[in-house]
Amino acid sequence: MGLMTRGDYIESLRSMKKRVFIMGQEIENLVDHPLVRPSLNACAMTYELAQKPEYADLMLASSNLTGQTVNRFTHLHQSTADLVAKVKMLRLLGQKTGCCFQRCVGMDTLNAVDSVTYEMDKALGTKYHAAFRRYLQHVQEHDLVVDGAMTDPKGDRRLSPSRQADPDLFVHVVEKRSDGIVVRGAKLHQTGALNSHEIFVMPTRALSEEDQDYAVAFAVPADAQGILMIYGRQPSDTRKLEGGQVDVGNREFGGHEAVIILNDVFVPSERVFMAGEYAFSGLLVERFAGYHRQSYGGCKVGVGDVLVGTAQSLARYQGTDKTSHIRDKIVEMVHLNETMYACGIACSEEGKPTTSGTYLIDLLMANVCKLNVTRFPYEIARLAQDIAGGLLVTLPSEKDLVNPEVGPYLEKYLRSVGRYTTEERCRMLRLMENLTLGPGAAGYLTESMHGAGSPQAQKIMLARLADLEEKMRLARKLAGIKE
Amino acid sequence: MGLMTRGDYIESLRSMKKRVFIMGQEIENLVDHPLVRPSLNACAMTYELAQKPEYADLMLASSNLTGQTVNRFTHLHQSTADLVAKVKMLRLLGQKTGCCFQRCVGMDTLNAVDSVTYEMDKALGTKYHAAFRRYLQHVQEHDLVVDGAMTDPKGDRRLSPSRQADPDLFVHVVEKRSDGIVVRGAKLHQTGALNSHEIFVMPTRALSEEDQDYAVAFAVPADAQGILMIYGRQPSDTRKLEGGQVDVGNREFGGHEAVIILNDVFVPSERVFMAGEYAFSGLLVERFAGYHRQSYGGCKVGVGDVLVGTAQSLARYQGTDKTSHIRDKIVEMVHLNETMYACGIACSEEGKPTTSGTYLIDLLMANVCKLNVTRFPYEIARLAQDIAGGLLVTLPSEKDLVNPEVGPYLEKYLRSVGRYTTEERCRMLRLMENLTLGPGAAGYLTESMHGAGSPQAQKIMLARLADLEEKMRLARKLAGIKE
Amino acid sequence: MGLMTRGDYIESLRSMKKRVFIMGQEIENLVDHPLVRPSLNACAMTYELAQKPEYADLMLASSNLTGQTVNRFTHLHQSTADLVAKVKMLRLLGQKTGCCFQRCVGMDTLNAVDSVTYEMDKALGTKYHAAFRRYLQHVQEHDLVVDGAMTDPKGDRRLSPSRQADPDLFVHVVEKRSDGIVVRGAKLHQTGALNSHEIFVMPTRALSEEDQDYAVAFAVPADAQGILMIYGRQPSDTRKLEGGQVDVGNREFGGHEAVIILNDVFVPSERVFMAGEYAFSGLLVERFAGYHRQSYGGCKVGVGDVLVGTAQSLARYQGTDKTSHIRDKIVEMVHLNETMYACGIACSEEGKPTTSGTYLIDLLMANVCKLNVTRFPYEIARLAQDIAGGLLVTLPSEKDLVNPEVGPYLEKYLRSVGRYTTEERCRMLRLMENLTLGPGAAGYLTESMHGAGSPQAQKIMLARLADLEEKMRLARKLAGIKE
Amino acid sequence: MGLMTRGDYIESLRSMKKRVFIMGQEIENLVDHPLVRPSLNACAMTYELAQKPEYADLMLASSNLTGQTVNRFTHLHQSTADLVAKVKMLRLLGQKTGCCFQRCVGMDTLNAVDSVTYEMDKALGTKYHAAFRRYLQHVQEHDLVVDGAMTDPKGDRRLSPSRQADPDLFVHVVEKRSDGIVVRGAKLHQTGALNSHEIFVMPTRALSEEDQDYAVAFAVPADAQGILMIYGRQPSDTRKLEGGQVDVGNREFGGHEAVIILNDVFVPSERVFMAGEYAFSGLLVERFAGYHRQSYGGCKVGVGDVLVGTAQSLARYQGTDKTSHIRDKIVEMVHLNETMYACGIACSEEGKPTTSGTYLIDLLMANVCKLNVTRFPYEIARLAQDIAGGLLVTLPSEKDLVNPEVGPYLEKYLRSVGRYTTEERCRMLRLMENLTLGPGAAGYLTESMHGAGSPQAQKIMLARLADLEEKMRLARKLAGIKE
Repeated sequence: MGLMTRGDYIESLRSMKKRVFIMGQEIENLVDHPLVRPSLNACAMTYELAQKPEYADLMLASSNLTGQTVNRFTHLHQSTADLVAKVKMLRLLGQKTGCCFQRCVGMDTLNAVDSVTYEMDKALGTKYHAAFRRYLQHVQEHDLVVDGAMTDPKGDRRLSPSRQADPDLFVHVVEKRSDGIVVRGAKLHQTGALNSHEIFVMPTRALSEEDQDYAVAFAVPADAQGILMIYGRQPSDTRKLEGGQVDVGNREFGGHEAVIILNDVFVPSERVFMAGEYAFSGLLVERFAGYHRQSYGGCKVGVGDVLVGTAQSLARYQGTDKTSHIRDKIVEMVHLNETMYACGIACSEEGKPTTSGTYLIDLLMANVCKLNVTRFPYEIARLAQDIAGGLLVTLPSEKDLVNPEVGPYLEKYLRSVGRYTTEERCRMLRLMENLTLGPGAAGYLTESMHGAGSPQAQKIMLARLADLEEKMRLARKLAGIKE
Repeated sequence: MGLMTRGDYIESLRSMKKRVFIMGQEIENLVDHPLVRPSLNACAMTYELAQKPEYADLMLASSNLTGQTVNRFTHLHQSTADLVAKVKMLRLLGQKTGCCFQRCVGMDTLNAVDSVTYEMDKALGTKYHAAFRRYLQHVQEHDLVVDGAMTDPKGDRRLSPSRQADPDLFVHVVEKRSDGIVVRGAKLHQTGALNSHEIFVMPTRALSEEDQDYAVAFAVPADAQGILMIYGRQPSDTRKLEGGQVDVGNREFGGHEAVIILNDVFVPSERVFMAGEYAFSGLLVERFAGYHRQSYGGCKVGVGDVLVGTAQSLARYQGTDKTSHIRDKIVEMVHLNETMYACGIACSEEGKPTTSGTYLIDLLMANVCKLNVTRFPYEIARLAQDIAGGLLVTLPSEKDLVNPEVGPYLEKYLRSVGRYTTEERCRMLRLMENLTLGPGAAGYLTESMHGAGSPQAQKIMLARLADLEEKMRLARKLAGIKE
Repeated sequence: MGLMTRGDYIESLRSMKKRVFIMGQEIENLVDHPLVRPSLNACAMTYELAQKPEYADLMLASSNLTGQTVNRFTHLHQSTADLVAKVKMLRLLGQKTGCCFQRCVGMDTLNAVDSVTYEMDKALGTKYHAAFRRYLQHVQEHDLVVDGAMTDPKGDRRLSPSRQADPDLFVHVVEKRSDGIVVRGAKLHQTGALNSHEIFVMPTRALSEEDQDYAVAFAVPADAQGILMIYGRQPSDTRKLEGGQVDVGNREFGGHEAVIILNDVFVPSERVFMAGEYAFSGLLVERFAGYHRQSYGGCKVGVGDVLVGTAQSLARYQGTDKTSHIRDKIVEMVHLNETMYACGIACSEEGKPTTSGTYLIDLLMANVCKLNVTRFPYEIARLAQDIAGGLLVTLPSEKDLVNPEVGPYLEKYLRSVGRYTTEERCRMLRLMENLTLGPGAAGYLTESMHGAGSPQAQKIMLARLADLEEKMRLARKLAGIKE
Repeated sequence: MGLMTRGDYIESLRSMKKRVFIMGQEIENLVDHPLVRPSLNACAMTYELAQKPEYADLMLASSNLTGQTVNRFTHLHQSTADLVAKVKMLRLLGQKTGCCFQRCVGMDTLNAVDSVTYEMDKALGTKYHAAFRRYLQHVQEHDLVVDGAMTDPKGDRRLSPSRQADPDLFVHVVEKRSDGIVVRGAKLHQTGALNSHEIFVMPTRALSEEDQDYAVAFAVPADAQGILMIYGRQPSDTRKLEGGQVDVGNREFGGHEAVIILNDVFVPSERVFMAGEYAFSGLLVERFAGYHRQSYGGCKVGVGDVLVGTAQSLARYQGTDKTSHIRDKIVEMVHLNETMYACGIACSEEGKPTTSGTYLIDLLMANVCKLNVTRFPYEIARLAQDIAGGLLVTLPSEKDLVNPEVGPYLEKYLRSVGRYTTEERCRMLRLMENLTLGPGAAGYLTESMHGAGSPQAQKIMLARLADLEEKMRLARKLAGIKE
């Protein structure tokens, strides 16, 4: 027990019996599947870097539960310094993987559930907090990957859970037993589900009394009876099956999402952390979303660093890196990227302790952070494509590069500034393609839009948190309007 | 002879002997290759619609050479009405194919070469114009697809053609014979090359005397001796090989680009339209680029219409199409799309005849048009993704949808507003994925950025055409500054 | 009778007896008032240029009523060429005045009322159209300035006219007499009211039956009994009273708006063009707004030309006009400016005849035009300020420039590139200040936002006109969804 | 000695003998001059709030020189907490004044000079640091306002100081005496100069050896022999002279800038902190600019709060504050405003000690902060104007509101939602006019653009600080390119 190595982690997954379908087929050996391996590699990086002394400050923390050293991904934030370290850790991992490394959803879930169960117990006399902390100790001791599962299918967006044509369109309790509950439903967009040890389910929205069966939070092993996972496709996903080195773009890493089906899954009582307390559902969503909106101020910035690096590399290969309009675009990319980072840092530094002692980011600024993340990566990607030139989408296959007849022509004609090889240029083009139009774009763009809530969700929070009444008072004072 | 049907067109391609490599292999039956067929279908639409009476106004024109009815894609614009009809035709085709249909590069080449050869002959006493018009008559009579080939590999962007380490990085004349010339080099990003009858080569930049061998324009059959084509990859291209109906997104259509290698190709004199007249190289580039920048105010707008349609459809399926923020985003997409169209129309209406009688668009506004096209499709795509939700990049494969075990779960859980089927929703998601992250995005986004010249090329033209001296005079007058 | 000269026009105003209040005082000699004169000069430019042969194509037209040559501002558009000429005329006037020249509101009113009265008569059997055309003939023959008066005070925006606490918050008929009607209410933001011969009142929104008294359109002389005008302030307006030459920025020209009070004004029957026909109120608003949204694609572009000219001048004075980032900003200003112009041209060229024969712009594109005008001038102004440097808002008074003690210091220290004088630089700075932060900014920025309807009004029109059903059909076709 | 009250401060200014010219006249009683008083009021707020216990944390600090409590504006930052407190103090003051309160330039100067003199002494063996700290102790003990004077006139921007036609276009040493130096030149855009006790001059750019006479930093009393100040005009400045309550917009506060002429001013040695050490000139500029770019993440955000408050107030008065598009715009304003704040906080929290012990912000993020400030206030202002409606620039004078004949009409017709008075609405409109088109806009917009360096200066810093080589390494690693 204790911190796992990359190898331990992979073996721990190998020993699980998850039921997973990929492109119409059930997969036996998940760990070595070429569509899954890159995402496993990315998640494994959270273990790998934790073993390196130079990253210990960022990757490790001292558990407030046990005093043991734990991976920060299983840690409850105890200070604003912890919150800042989280953002920096995520940026580092984004830089090292160039993709979504999947483990922050669980970290954000654990931190959110901690304070909400505490407050719920205080208000309602329930006993969830202690159970949760026991569960968390287990997670810390075994250094587990937890999949935080929030987003329900939602059906007709205008209808609340209990009013949907199909009652299962939101996860709900279908049976209460003396020793636990039985749940049914599904969770969409489950980042890293295949690489997780645990599935931690939360409700997806604020609920009212009529929806109380939907107010349910719990954790189950990812291979629990009744769980099915269905792999989500990404752009250009099957390039990973082609066996090449170049066209895949990001050679080792990738992300994934899956649909999780919860088909009457039994959850023992000690793993249930909300069951019916609908009034706390909205708070849990808000807290989780807050933490996760902070996360994006780290991880996407790290991927942004990589994208800036691809653009600058391609400019250099082509001899344009000193051209003024190219420099200006690179600077703009950096500027937008660092603006997101600043928001991630600021919401962390302005964090405050909750009543359970766990630190919460400043929610207003965390929402500001995420709202920028729904915009800037798209512009960064656009600028990157501007710098790259059209070859980004017209480059022949790597198989052409090695074909004896046409390979030499490509070698000759795709050569640019002398000291860089054609292959190097092609690899860099493919990496940018991956990040802006390929599987990386699923994470860097679309997930930046919708992960942790679509932009409108952030706007609603901003409207609530902005204290417009106070701003109006300031204006009236200066305008000389008597109260 | 005369207008070809879709069937005629396909057969005409089948009879050609192009040498084409796709993913490392030389292809025998190009026409039926699943990676090529969708792009052929798109190009074929230019023949198909030309047969429909309801589109005759847009698709057909009366040749100023022969008085015969010709496909507008082979026509020399004789009026501003012709220029406007061109834009409307391109929008229509974008709507019908949702992709690049490839034939406008040739149309724009023919129109540009017409007036430039006329002016060159006048200035230099050459005899290119009459030869060109004979060639054009051949193109019109056989209703050919012409690939306009401009972009050279360029090597180190800081160096002119003759100063590159490898003299072949720009196409040039390597031998002059009594009956013609021999050329060597390559052209990148050749849109629709595999579906073309003819390759029409032009220089890619203004040239000075030392680069006069690079000042060369000519036409050759696409299967001429010495020509090799290498197919360019696009995001998610191999979905076309999966044999499905859904994941491919755009079920029937697509675009493609190829690298064309010109390996000592002989061009007979009657097909040579510039050979050494370097002083007219820049003018030809400017004219071609001008026409092609106009084109984008039509074709991309048509694709934009489709993308708006996917977004509105997905909103409706999810029950959000009446939500105010969704409506606002749809309106913004429309607004941006129509702004590009307005630019396309305006540069056409403000067109003027050249000395050869062929009409030229207003160059300033054509450049304004294209510069908007390098920006707005990206924002339209971003808004579309906002509306679609995360399922855009997490949707399982269509093979999962029909898998007996997980298919029913997906059917159940991906259902949204009752009267729309899950399959319909999935198809629409895949179409949007195609357009914003898949092969369609290569055309709708990256090609919008770089086709007809990267944004900086437009800015350079705007700086030249803006008449800043006149604007300063206006300002001085109002400020009361004496001249 | 016939076309007036600038002198005739001024004398014609002098002979009127308008009741006007400016800054708390009733003004006798309006024409020579220094706060009003610049706006009169701007409006007079519509007469002055009409006398110049070089502008005859743009400024004059042949009346479809009489065959006489009339000022285009009083003309009913008879073709798309007329619509285009209108836009070009407005750009020209914007260039010559650097401000709002006020006369287009009337032109747009006349054109809108023409077709609406025609259609109303057809539908309801009323007799307004003939009366209107008689009135118009009078306007044409006397070459009058007509103030188109649309915007009511509106009170609580959530309430319709008849439900307001005060029934007068929208102009309405308070008495019907055998020979005419009596009206009461007010119109806000009346551009050029003080320089007008006529006030032409229209309703400000679509109305339902309960609001039928508010469905009223009519024309009265601007000095009719019961009319009061109250001058609206603009930023830095009183610099016009300082008697200087420099700080005023735009030395000769300016715009103005006024509140018009209609205090039980009698309107004879022959000047009433709608009185109770509420069902046509919305159409009239839409038509007028459409024409006026087109107008902005001309006039604001002309002012934009001036602003580009000030920025380029200041850059040149400072020696930065060749600096790459400055050039890039100038090009961006031009690009945005020409994009608006393209929209103005395009909506004109795509115009169609109404049933009365008068041409109407393409409404979708006219709304696109105006929506861009609510955005781009602000960005153009921001870029201009970027180029100008901080001196724009820190420059001392022109009185300091001539003060014997400090004047020489300013002369010395505000000198930049040798061949330009300090005074020239100061004048140019003041002109830019006028346009971006002074009275010119009221017209160039805020009026661009709200004139012809605030942005949301354009968005509502775009939502109505976009034909989303058709776009969804296109998408379904490509996605392979059966109807 | 010690902290001054507001009253003390005003008296301290009254006792000075500054030579100041305003609009062509030398002013005797500066303190009571209506054009100056509002800016004095704003600066005085830095004293007033320092007396209030509720703001002690933000406004006061414990001097690291003496241990005494000092106003934070004279404090050397001793921790990141100090840097954060600075940003929060500036936001507070922006909220309370709605304008530039002028005192931060001095604070930023003192902090920059502290570490630079320390490092300069270390490197060159000079003795400036101790002298500077003695001077600072004087400033702290007397609670002085220091004007940080950086920007020289610059003349032809392409030429270095010593190559200008006039050698005085940058401040330079014209004579070295045993007891001090004599300097000549001018400084432009001197924020708050009239309200300052001290003028602290620094060079404006990096310098090379030939410009060593321009490498000069020193402090002199603001009324030292040879100093002349010339007041800069602002939009609508003279409304302050009209004696009203409404049209002035911001009733009590304002900012100002002045030109300072240094006409052979003698500076005693103990007040000279750089004289010839050209190699440290760039560093001083960079440090000062860094601190000042941080400042803008506080002060402009505070003004932004006021502007949001005016927009929300006007929406409420008009009954539109619940309308979805209005809410959306308010949220966008808040979002942009808080993004700037996040940058201000982040660059503070990521601050580090310099070798002198004084804390320096993270320079990369401070530049990111300022670059956002050159953009977002303009968009916030645009959105505010969108919400306000056109009355913002068409509202009659307050003298009309009280005129017996037209006042009642305005009262009647400008009334909107019942419970708010017309006067209240007018006051709020005038406040927004002040902030977006009036004297407040000089500070909120143009100064946001150019203060602490124009945008290009930030971009140059970002290019230097971005570590593109590291980003390229990250990309190469992921692309599988061997080093």
